[in-house]
Amino acid sequence: MSLVPRGEETRSRILEAAAECFARHGYDASGVAEICQHAGVTKGAFYHHFPTKQAVFLELLNQWLKVLDAQLATAQVGATTVPERFVRMADMAQHVFQMADGRLPMFLEFLIEARHDPAVWQAVIAPYRQYRAFFADIIRAGVAEGTLQPVDPEIAAQVVVSLAVGLVLQGVFDPTGADWGQVTQNGIQILLDGLETQE
Amino acid sequence: MSLVPRGEETRSRILEAAAECFARHGYDASGVAEICQHAGVTKGAFYHHFPTKQAVFLELLNQWLKVLDAQLATAQVGATTVPERFVRMADMAQHVFQMADGRLPMFLEFLIEARHDPAVWQAVIAPYRQYRAFFADIIRAGVAEGTLQPVDPEIAAQVVVSLAVGLVLQGVFDPTGADWGQVTQNGIQILLDGLETQE
Repeated sequence: MSLVPRGEETRSRILEAAAECFARHGYDASGVAEICQHAGVTKGAFYHHFPTKQAVFLELLNQWLKVLDAQLATAQVGATTVPERFVRMADMAQHVFQMADGRLPMFLEFLIEARHDPAVWQAVIAPYRQYRAFFADIIRAGVAEGTLQPVDPEIAAQVVVSLAVGLVLQGVFDPTGADWGQVTQNGIQILLDGLETQE
Repeated sequence: MSLVPRGEETRSRILEAAAECFARHGYDASGVAEICQHAGVTKGAFYHHFPTKQAVFLELLNQWLKVLDAQLATAQVGATTVPERFVRMADMAQHVFQMADGRLPMFLEFLIEARHDPAVWQAVIAPYRQYRAFFADIIRAGVAEGTLQPVDPEIAAQVVVSLAVGLVLQGVFDPTGADWGQVTQNGIQILLDGLETQE
């Protein structure tokens, strides 16, 4: 007897099957029928759990972002200053690239379609803006503890997120073009050299 | 009597029409038939000038990159040090965002499709790698003239390009999320603070 309720299990199977279909054939090319076939569920079961294919994608996005949040939190454990927190987050970049691999192209595909649909657009853009707020808070703490120069935390956070977005995009589209984990570490170090108070 | 040879004019009309169709409906959704109708040319004329829709896209990409190259060259005129050259290039970021607007989504769409086609992929990735070499040369000159610390020019250039890629992506997908021209100026300034030799 399984400990997972039947409905939950079906829901998980749909999500896993969708993630595989999207990664392999793209978001556009993967229909609900194909996802159902791959998951071994009926269309009725699919629509019992999700109103649309779009809803499945947004749920997958939420799951990945939760993993990323947990990784970002774990990476910072034991760091005593803000520059140390940044260095540790940069060190885990390799894992983020591995996690994003095979997923970003479908994410971009979804983004291109969603940009003219205000409701979906808000759902996609909200977590991204949360990361900006997350880094602004860290930078604010660094200014307060005196390790960072008195920069505008919002603006410095936009720069950090811009660098991160660019790194992820290149890491996926041009994986052999550079050691992206290394470039991330170097990039964060150069930014820190620009942001830190001079000793 | 026109000074432009007839064939050249037809070719230009096809390129203009394709740029409009791609920007409005996306790369995928714009067929050769639609481009021909929009340009007022026959399919025979189209295929006389371009073997495929893909070839039209690559020619448009080349044209835009030529404009960008010219803008980057113009921006640097009169700058006497490498940090000045960077500041001036950052100042022109607003124009680059305007130029990219409406074009990047179709570029991403093309990129997503092209990434499994080695020949097209090389054509797309080559100019991007040239920009990395372009910035590496400038940073090398900065190290040589003593305005920049003795960093590895290739790595520092990867960081600069990563920041640029991230800024352009956000500028197009989240145009109202920040003043991206301003973020570019701030980002380059923070990088320069990290790269410049201390006075």
